[in-house]
Amino acid sequence: MNALSQKVINLPESATLAMANKAREIKRKGVDIINLSIGEPDFNTPEFIKKAAIDAINQDYNGYTPVDGYLELREAICHKLRRDNQLTYQPNQIVVSTGAKQCIANILMALLNPQDQVLLPCPFWVSYTAMTVLNQSNFSLIPSSIDSRYKITAQQLKSSITPKTKVVIFNSPNNPSGSVYSKEEFIEIGQVLMEHPHVYIISDEIYEHINYGVPHYSLANIPELSNRTIVVNGLSKSFAMTGWRLGYMAGPEWIAAACKKIQGQFTSGTNCIAQRAAITALMHSPTEIHYMVDAFKKRRDYALELLKTIPDFKINKPDGAFYLFPDVSSFYGSKIKGIQINHSTDLALFLLEHAQVATVAGSAFGQKKSLRLSYATSEEQLDKAIGNIARLLNA
Amino acid sequence: MNALSQKVINLPESATLAMANKAREIKRKGVDIINLSIGEPDFNTPEFIKKAAIDAINQDYNGYTPVDGYLELREAICHKLRRDNQLTYQPNQIVVSTGAKQCIANILMALLNPQDQVLLPCPFWVSYTAMTVLNQSNFSLIPSSIDSRYKITAQQLKSSITPKTKVVIFNSPNNPSGSVYSKEEFIEIGQVLMEHPHVYIISDEIYEHINYGVPHYSLANIPELSNRTIVVNGLSKSFAMTGWRLGYMAGPEWIAAACKKIQGQFTSGTNCIAQRAAITALMHSPTEIHYMVDAFKKRRDYALELLKTIPDFKINKPDGAFYLFPDVSSFYGSKIKGIQINHSTDLALFLLEHAQVATVAGSAFGQKKSLRLSYATSEEQLDKAIGNIARLLNA
Repeated sequence: MNALSQKVINLPESATLAMANKAREIKRKGVDIINLSIGEPDFNTPEFIKKAAIDAINQDYNGYTPVDGYLELREAICHKLRRDNQLTYQPNQIVVSTGAKQCIANILMALLNPQDQVLLPCPFWVSYTAMTVLNQSNFSLIPSSIDSRYKITAQQLKSSITPKTKVVIFNSPNNPSGSVYSKEEFIEIGQVLMEHPHVYIISDEIYEHINYGVPHYSLANIPELSNRTIVVNGLSKSFAMTGWRLGYMAGPEWIAAACKKIQGQFTSGTNCIAQRAAITALMHSPTEIHYMVDAFKKRRDYALELLKTIPDFKINKPDGAFYLFPDVSSFYGSKIKGIQINHSTDLALFLLEHAQVATVAGSAFGQKKSLRLSYATSEEQLDKAIGNIARLLNA
Repeated sequence: MNALSQKVINLPESATLAMANKAREIKRKGVDIINLSIGEPDFNTPEFIKKAAIDAINQDYNGYTPVDGYLELREAICHKLRRDNQLTYQPNQIVVSTGAKQCIANILMALLNPQDQVLLPCPFWVSYTAMTVLNQSNFSLIPSSIDSRYKITAQQLKSSITPKTKVVIFNSPNNPSGSVYSKEEFIEIGQVLMEHPHVYIISDEIYEHINYGVPHYSLANIPELSNRTIVVNGLSKSFAMTGWRLGYMAGPEWIAAACKKIQGQFTSGTNCIAQRAAITALMHSPTEIHYMVDAFKKRRDYALELLKTIPDFKINKPDGAFYLFPDVSSFYGSKIKGIQINHSTDLALFLLEHAQVATVAGSAFGQKKSLRLSYATSEEQLDKAIGNIARLLNA
């Protein structure tokens, strides 16, 4: 395949995808897999949003939209950012994209030259590294562990920034760890960033509303950083709209203009029906979707109790998102059922084959000691899945 | 703005966008602009497709789709390519994207290294050059003129290919010229391409169904080229679904796999509702949308008659798409109403301000002598617009 471009040859296969494919393969053999590897709510899109989409179809919304999204939608996003986040933006600071993913891809493409460095607090979301590679730039990881609740400190950030650092990406609530940075923690981190005006900050807040107590805070709330912080959010997780593909960025006008320019050449405006539905979704109070958050919280607690039955898993209590991220490294270096387990991928594949449970290896997120289990599924499935894992590993 | 990446600094502003913005600006002053610059049908999405989309919403299609699209949709695309184009593909050779635009961006990203060259027969669609720039690659133009009906010859292609040529992009029916390459012309061109196995071929067929007589033919129909030809098509133009954003590519499996990998990092799968609607659209006979093609043909003939009232426009009869592309260069070097007209942008801006008609300068498509006028509008608007232009230029 030497006809492929070097940047694509360098691109790692998505780890999530690899597990999903493997799970599908086993399923095809007639074996029933319980899927805890999925990164989407198991709720349906709320009825009031579906109705708005149907209305839009009946009202013949079908033409090209502005590349950066309908003005009405960008105004709704400004409204949401004021209402929920105490952040003030104008519509020309907003770009609506085909998912938060495209927002981040746009921003990185707008900012990165080859040799620039992207700093990634670990664990990080898998696509950050891939997007950096596609820009022929480098990434550098800032480690964390379950003992620091999978968060990095201001001191760590300080010693990681170099003259080549162009971007740092925070993701709170975090996928995969579920950790949420507190206001105090972000203010300390912000103080470090104030000393390094050459560093741009992407604040990926896609799990904002799936939060069980630590109040959501953003580096964009720090006035001294607002001229180089870009907030990324979307409807996928909070409104159970993953398949609709709608995300948005809010940031300095010149970065928004660059993202719009890039997006104009890649996809143009996002699906018109999703945009109309998003206006309705964002103008409603977040309390309308709280039934989902309540359910996730209940399941988090349920799943945590179940995990306690596996004494060799080191667990922590996540404050947001819908994942558990136990440290499973006590199994490394040992044999289970005659199979050598040396890292998270070994264990994930072992659990898939022998417990019929799909998870995601922590190495996909730069956290080799851990394993991601999604609890965006029923208690019955959690029972069965974690039961299977416990029986296998406790034996 | 030196924080922007070099590839974005190098990216030219979209010419179409610039005119659209200028038109909006004039409109804001209360002046009524007739818009002949638009690249989309003025029909609404057909009812049977809208119904399929509404059904999908009611059936709770809302989760992540496969990155390359629902299998059922990729099968429908294979069915369509067999039925309409006598082309045989398997679903793993298909990738569904957020518009044909993203398909082309994916393919170029998959294939282009810096220093590679993209050959563009003129006139070309505006995004081809921008996408090439974003890949830090070079493009080279093969000229045509109204005398060659805006088509290039096999001989021209032969003398343009170099060892650095990686991709050539054909777009038939063509935006902006409306020209359609015949089977005979493509077979001659194909013979040249057979001698240069290092060149990949993108066949952008987005206007396939908007054709008034020359049977549609694709370089992919030439068996010797099928292992390096990628067909790009979509629903925007034929099904009046521009805002829905759905395109697809069909090509060698390894190129499809690379496009899927890239898309997985930029946007993931396309909007789920648009995908369900597309299954219905593609499984229906193309005759169901022929009422639009009939209307476009009638308007083409109508607009051509109107254009004849401007003796200094050199016109040709396009066989497809919904644009007229007169050669307007007889005005260059002269003053009209005291304003110096030296190229197509001058004339386009002059018509906007003095005839209240928005068009697109041919230079946007690498054809400086011409001007694009879209006839995807009512006869009444065409009357008024071309009447205004005639009064202004014939004076």
